[in-house]
Amino acid sequence: MKIVRYEDVSPQPVTQEGADQVNIRWLIAKEDGAPHFAMRLFEIKPGGHTPIHRHSNEHEVFFLEGEAAVVRDGKEVPVSPGTAVYVPPDEEHGFINRGKGVVRMLCMVPI
Amino acid sequence: MKIVRYEDVSPQPVTQEGADQVNIRWLIAKEDGAPHFAMRLFEIKPGGHTPIHRHSNEHEVFFLEGEAAVVRDGKEVPVSPGTAVYVPPDEEHGFINRGKGVVRMLCMVPI
Repeated sequence: MKIVRYEDVSPQPVTQEGADQVNIRWLIAKEDGAPHFAMRLFEIKPGGHTPIHRHSNEHEVFFLEGEAAVVRDGKEVPVSPGTAVYVPPDEEHGFINRGKGVVRMLCMVPI
Repeated sequence: MKIVRYEDVSPQPVTQEGADQVNIRWLIAKEDGAPHFAMRLFEIKPGGHTPIHRHSNEHEVFFLEGEAAVVRDGKEVPVSPGTAVYVPPDEEHGFINRGKGVVRMLCMVPI
């Protein structure tokens, strides 16, 4: 069993095209033996955003901290901590920091 | 895309043997079209606990709120909000509320 605080997992900058001021921490990954899906914690700094894109894998997201917006059908939907988001495969999506503090969100993906 | 606050999903009591004072909210489930894994939010009231048991599916857990303990190798490990736990298949585990407030935790499982 792995027990880890998120602060103890090194953040890595997301260098993917379309991402700006985003870090990722891999909390539970294939290397831990996880057979089906991975848990990542994203940090989006004020003014930052993930790419607005689509791909074949789904996302399961939970917002922990900060004022964010989710891009759905080309429009921004404001979201607050305590909000879960299911992004089906191949649906366009993006996550934007619209506040003054850091946005923290979990994002699970299939492995 | 589904966007939902956890408070807007009805809590259901967990009636499984060995569970005490535990509610579950299914935030993202098979019914939403999720193909690989589900997101549930558990609430454990003060004095409550999940079963101490083992099963073939893994758990990926993230603690959101409250003072909890994780049972690992028959001993309690205190955990606080911001802690991730990976429970491999077939490993004994349990989650206990050791504080005065509600423990809230996400628990993802394969579908």
